[in-house]
Amino acid sequence: MAETDQALPPSDQLAAMNLTDTVEKHAFSDRVLIRSIVGRPDGGAGLAGQRVRAGGWVKTGREQGKGTFAFLELNDGSCPANLQVIVDAGLAVLSKLVATGTCVVVDGILKVPPEGTRQKIELRVEKVVSVGEVDPAKYPIPKTKLTLEFLRDHLHLRARTNTIAAIARIRNALAFATHSFFQEHNFLYVHTPILTTSDCEGAGEMFQVTTLISESEKLEKELIKNPPPSEVDIEAARQVVSERGEAVKQLKAAKASKSEITASVAELNKAKENLSKLEERSKLKPGIPKKDGKIDYTQDFFARQAFLTVSGQLQVETYACAVSNVYTFGPTFRAEHSHTSRHLAEFWMVEPEIAFADLQDDMNCAEAYVKYMCNWLLDKCLDDMLFMAKSYDKGCIDRLRMVASIPFVRISYTEAVELLEEAVRGGKKFENEVKWGIDLASEHERYLTEVKFQKPVIVYNYPKGIKAFYMRLNDDLKTVAAMDVLVPKVGELIGGSQREERYEVIRERILEVGLPLEPYEWYLDLRRYGTVKHCGFGLGFERMILFATGIENIRDVIPFPRYPGRADL
Amino acid sequence: MAETDQALPPSDQLAAMNLTDTVEKHAFSDRVLIRSIVGRPDGGAGLAGQRVRAGGWVKTGREQGKGTFAFLELNDGSCPANLQVIVDAGLAVLSKLVATGTCVVVDGILKVPPEGTRQKIELRVEKVVSVGEVDPAKYPIPKTKLTLEFLRDHLHLRARTNTIAAIARIRNALAFATHSFFQEHNFLYVHTPILTTSDCEGAGEMFQVTTLISESEKLEKELIKNPPPSEVDIEAARQVVSERGEAVKQLKAAKASKSEITASVAELNKAKENLSKLEERSKLKPGIPKKDGKIDYTQDFFARQAFLTVSGQLQVETYACAVSNVYTFGPTFRAEHSHTSRHLAEFWMVEPEIAFADLQDDMNCAEAYVKYMCNWLLDKCLDDMLFMAKSYDKGCIDRLRMVASIPFVRISYTEAVELLEEAVRGGKKFENEVKWGIDLASEHERYLTEVKFQKPVIVYNYPKGIKAFYMRLNDDLKTVAAMDVLVPKVGELIGGSQREERYEVIRERILEVGLPLEPYEWYLDLRRYGTVKHCGFGLGFERMILFATGIENIRDVIPFPRYPGRADL
Repeated sequence: MAETDQALPPSDQLAAMNLTDTVEKHAFSDRVLIRSIVGRPDGGAGLAGQRVRAGGWVKTGREQGKGTFAFLELNDGSCPANLQVIVDAGLAVLSKLVATGTCVVVDGILKVPPEGTRQKIELRVEKVVSVGEVDPAKYPIPKTKLTLEFLRDHLHLRARTNTIAAIARIRNALAFATHSFFQEHNFLYVHTPILTTSDCEGAGEMFQVTTLISESEKLEKELIKNPPPSEVDIEAARQVVSERGEAVKQLKAAKASKSEITASVAELNKAKENLSKLEERSKLKPGIPKKDGKIDYTQDFFARQAFLTVSGQLQVETYACAVSNVYTFGPTFRAEHSHTSRHLAEFWMVEPEIAFADLQDDMNCAEAYVKYMCNWLLDKCLDDMLFMAKSYDKGCIDRLRMVASIPFVRISYTEAVELLEEAVRGGKKFENEVKWGIDLASEHERYLTEVKFQKPVIVYNYPKGIKAFYMRLNDDLKTVAAMDVLVPKVGELIGGSQREERYEVIRERILEVGLPLEPYEWYLDLRRYGTVKHCGFGLGFERMILFATGIENIRDVIPFPRYPGRADL
Repeated sequence: MAETDQALPPSDQLAAMNLTDTVEKHAFSDRVLIRSIVGRPDGGAGLAGQRVRAGGWVKTGREQGKGTFAFLELNDGSCPANLQVIVDAGLAVLSKLVATGTCVVVDGILKVPPEGTRQKIELRVEKVVSVGEVDPAKYPIPKTKLTLEFLRDHLHLRARTNTIAAIARIRNALAFATHSFFQEHNFLYVHTPILTTSDCEGAGEMFQVTTLISESEKLEKELIKNPPPSEVDIEAARQVVSERGEAVKQLKAAKASKSEITASVAELNKAKENLSKLEERSKLKPGIPKKDGKIDYTQDFFARQAFLTVSGQLQVETYACAVSNVYTFGPTFRAEHSHTSRHLAEFWMVEPEIAFADLQDDMNCAEAYVKYMCNWLLDKCLDDMLFMAKSYDKGCIDRLRMVASIPFVRISYTEAVELLEEAVRGGKKFENEVKWGIDLASEHERYLTEVKFQKPVIVYNYPKGIKAFYMRLNDDLKTVAAMDVLVPKVGELIGGSQREERYEVIRERILEVGLPLEPYEWYLDLRRYGTVKHCGFGLGFERMILFATGIENIRDVIPFPRYPGRADL
């Protein structure tokens, strides 16, 4: 704290920091959030003298003064900082409080600790309200240096570590920043479907969603318990029908009474019904239903094959072409057998779509959005960012500041290739050959953003041959109005494009890339009727967290990572 | 407008309304949002004289003055109101502009229309920038009275109707209200997994997610193209191995040169490799892989059976038991063959979870959240709510006001059953019998909230026999600390409970309801180590939209409804 602050009397200091001197009560709990104490700019000092109830988990605990009292570092997840708590031996069995992971709720009075301690405030306990004990011999994540890899085998407990909790707060902040940004700019949040019968890219490795297997297993069990009728059973039932039919005929011939005939017909109908039921059941076969040698999807839940979405883009375009500015933010899926630190089978994507807008607008929106998120973290998560800088990536805060403040470089794909070729001539070695027409590899992207420019780079106007059919064909007929945002640390963060809004052109492109027209008729309708210039992009949300935190493996920045062979919980 | 307003000079009126007299430019487009004109309290009058570019879709258009000009009602989805646009015949072929659904972008000057018209402002076009035409003879949703049911067969175009666009704005508002509410109260947004290997309720109809079918189909195709080796092929390969082996032996016996032997051994190894490849390939069988007569899930993507989540609750509890206050907001799935107006196969749920909190806190949170959403709609979506009131449910705005302002009634399940029994004695007929122990049917719930109290009712402490194992057992050992929030129009809106935090009790409950312990070991760990009192609830997001708008069918309040037999797009 600066000298001048020291000169101010405490109450003026509080006023200068715009602090009240009462702790904010939690709205739906009888305790206060630890952040509302230690997260204040004064570290909580202004709250001395107040009585509060606090709850949290012990990060470290130790008995002191020959067992007469214990120090507990208590954390409730509301901020990275702990509250120091002092419990006298008369209030509880101290040995039951000090194990890492123990949950305690205590009532006490906030006091300024003796000079020379790091804390600005501590809690002197007056009453121990409750304790959730931990047997330190059995606790799977005791206080030792645990690797992130080890923690992946304990997904259900890893949020109790400083790192995973900090990532959870950063992830939360980025998610709310996303909503805030698009809401401020009048975008509507649209929930695109998870279950889909369209394949956006036309080439995805998609997860199939079905009830056929479980239905067939149910049937199999049922048939074992209650076997289908044999041919003999059915023949017997046929016999009964024929006998009953004969009986009816005879009664009619004998001009029997109406009631007699009615009763006999009823018997006949019952026999017929029984026969048809048996015949129906005899057709039941274990296994997945087939027709003409192929799986009969008309019997699946949606009466056709269904998959998990790989992108909400095509569907959200239907809303952009109706209400102008929209975005999705939801889970997407890839059934790729990738075991890299950059791929997940389930990940979250943000996909805005803007009508009445072109590629320039798209780039402007992407740049503004990324900058907004960086500023948001600097503004609202600085304590967590300081933790990440200290523990994982000392440059991460500077990186956020740089991206937030510097205009992104914008170069065409052709310029990008020229720069890469120049680098090769200068002696730079790439594993992948550089020439016009290639899809830029990660090494190329990272060279541009990390070495050549050392700031975010937007590359636009890619060769049409390496991009999707829905991207707008440029007048050169060789490139499409696509753009990728490259950032230091992760490379490609965003991919987007202006969409082809001309009916004849997009129809031609679909055929050109070898896709059938029929599944895209609804998509073509958007161009047939009231077509509009529009564009959009997709941001891989976990990539953004990797970029922000400097964490190396994408499996550590999503609460429940899914990848080949693993889907715990 | 009140008399006094009329007396103010125009500029003071603007100041009183806190309006500027320039149109806000759209950040990522060269046009302005129509809402920024007609959505102003002055209807746009204060903007007269300004030049703007506007874009949107024609709601209605007509040629006037013997074809010398056209009136277009233009809507861009930013608000329910249209902008009236006047185009002179010299600027465009008017007949190509007037069809419903046509997309037009125009530059023009805002003018106050002649006295006696409904509009406060209109746009005199100076230039038609672009037109996305519509052939009215082919347009699937022309301007006639279209039923919501009809529109369900045109999901890709239905957002262009007033109703679906209004619902989209209301849905967006409720989603952002949800995030705002929980963020304001220091909850962290946690992304629980969509793909799961846990079954929350222990009894769900779940969708299975697999790559086994597509992998087996891929293999089948590959085997047709490239048939597996026959026994003869393998025998021949074996023969080669044996010959090569013999050759090596002979060379060694003949003490041939080292290079000759090495070359011969290399040949032998090649032959062995070829044999083992053929043997491997000969094992490939078309069809889904099986082991001991059962599907071999170790070969599935996640090496075990995987499903779509029915609730994120159990998983989000792992975060609540680490960082205290959390919520999920994501898609959930039920593979139920329900064809009702209240069920979807894919729907969105909001599930907060609060540590250091009990059932009272849970009810307080639920009530505050619902009230917050009602106030949000009244505050930010009144124009859309007025449209819903006019078109679908005249009571919907009063209902929001009532729920926002009146304290919810809170009664125990036992009291609720007594009130229902009293009603039966008074002559009320229910289809389902009323007695202590039943699960309240929808008719019972709606009687309580719509007839008996005519306001929201929270029923708490349900018999344990009808509730899930994770709900906290009350001291009476007969009931659990569950609560349901019932509201007029939809009945149950929220279901929640305090969770059982006592290890021994929840272990007993799992066994009591006949579930195996093993899949819940991770869930038990939350009680084994540092257990904490906690609670939570789930709100069906589409139910909330039905409640707010008065729309009858849940398929109309989600952009892409999924139900048995249908998953369009």
